Amino acid sequence: MRIGIVGLGLIGGSMAIDLKALGHRVLGVSRRGETCELAIARGIVDAASPDFGVLAEAELVVLCTPLGAIASTLEKLLPHLDRSAILTDVGSTKVSVVETVVPRWPNFVGGHPMAGTAESGLEAAFAGLFVDRPYVLTPLEETPQRAIAVVEEMARSLQSRVYFCSPTHHDQAVAWISHLPVMVSASLIAACMQEFDPKVLELAQQLASSGFRDTSRVGGGNPELGVMMAQFNRGALGRSLRVYRQQLDQLIEQIDQEDWSELEHRLSLTQQARPKFVE
Amino acid sequence: MRIGIVGLGLIGGSMAIDLKALGHRVLGVSRRGETCELAIARGIVDAASPDFGVLAEAELVVLCTPLGAIASTLEKLLPHLDRSAILTDVGSTKVSVVETVVPRWPNFVGGHPMAGTAESGLEAAFAGLFVDRPYVLTPLEETPQRAIAVVEEMARSLQSRVYFCSPTHHDQAVAWISHLPVMVSASLIAACMQEFDPKVLELAQQLASSGFRDTSRVGGGNPELGVMMAQFNRGALGRSLRVYRQQLDQLIEQIDQEDWSELEHRLSLTQQARPKFVE
Repeated sequence: MRIGIVGLGLIGGSMAIDLKALGHRVLGVSRRGETCELAIARGIVDAASPDFGVLAEAELVVLCTPLGAIASTLEKLLPHLDRSAILTDVGSTKVSVVETVVPRWPNFVGGHPMAGTAESGLEAAFAGLFVDRPYVLTPLEETPQRAIAVVEEMARSLQSRVYFCSPTHHDQAVAWISHLPVMVSASLIAACMQEFDPKVLELAQQLASSGFRDTSRVGGGNPELGVMMAQFNRGALGRSLRVYRQQLDQLIEQIDQEDWSELEHRLSLTQQARPKFVE
Repeated sequence: MRIGIVGLGLIGGSMAIDLKALGHRVLGVSRRGETCELAIARGIVDAASPDFGVLAEAELVVLCTPLGAIASTLEKLLPHLDRSAILTDVGSTKVSVVETVVPRWPNFVGGHPMAGTAESGLEAAFAGLFVDRPYVLTPLEETPQRAIAVVEEMARSLQSRVYFCSPTHHDQAVAWISHLPVMVSASLIAACMQEFDPKVLELAQQLASSGFRDTSRVGGGNPELGVMMAQFNRGALGRSLRVYRQQLDQLIEQIDQEDWSELEHRLSLTQQARPKFVE
């Protein structure tokens, strides 16, 4: 198959590596000419260019640009696309992407491969990034069956665990397990920064250990990514944040009231619930 | 030196192993006769008994019981203690312990070795648990210098990093970096459990990955430990929780208002601040 990849970063680059190894003809687009040259030189793609014309022969095109660039990328891409071409993306939220793309290109299946590293860019790309990772597909009822089948087969060929759900369900699920943790974790760091006694702050910094390290990790990450989550998943994240605040308020109330048996009950429930999410 | 250890669990047992290896005569007390026998059989202590009389010859006694048992342990211990004996503890909060012990035994230095594993009990004890770990000492102005010197030397002999501060400063610092993270993390799990759409909940459980794993880890821990933190550090933890809620509210407000530049500023500050606490 002839597969186009728009955006040759960590995700797009890693996908290109795997798809080329599987025998597909891989065509890349990157804004930067240097990145295109590097991708060609390393044999990551068969051809690459900043010009979307390189995708004219593509049967399947994967949009691997940041969420904020999807709309503008679409403008540039669609005039070059074959009418039968199938389109998918890798964005971490789906409602807004699907709403943007489907009216203009019905042959589209929203996708979200849940893989990554702390690194970014083509230099960080590697074979097998998607192996055993979830890959969520969010077709609509009206999405052509062939488009779904082609994108599903591509995702499975990367050895991902493929899940199907509606864009809305996807966005609420990732709000809970990915976007809410970032906001909760960032607020922990922000709260500690409010300590006005320099002795206490210094001591806290000296004593911080694995508990603080783990709980604060995702809150200390890339600010642009955090903003993007909020921007493109505002509804679901807002709902999660409100439920979270309610739970926090209940916990504060239990501590204020010295209601230790209720607090212990609450913490027993969270202890029991966690293994249903992660080992 | 003749050193008594009350409570032969992970902390007390590991301390006994190291102190005996350093050439001290180590005397253990455990409620359970079996634990005493095991400690003797393994050569972890020189003598051990459920009877506090075994500590009559001790020059230094380390209370390694849970925080909730300190007061009752004191009742049983003090009648057997030599008048010149120095007392210390390993509790994870210090104001309440110091207030309980000092009026009855001025020769006391509050201590908090910040080491541990997910395991507990004497079986989990091992040599070197305290190496390179923080060990906070919280003497008062009126604490006898000799008591401070003896406890400090003991802590340093375990190769811990020794810090001195007031009990109040200690409790506020650990509220920030240890107790607040537990409540923040538990509330994350509690919030996710509120999802009423079973499809979304199942999807969230399937998709949860490293971000959720790390952020939820300490909130899925031992409920009794969590309650103990709240019980014995209610003031400082309550203050931290209120500051946290304020920060969370500001973040929610920024998302509601779609104030992306302020949200990005906030997340940039947390990204910059985290390395001051942990690498």
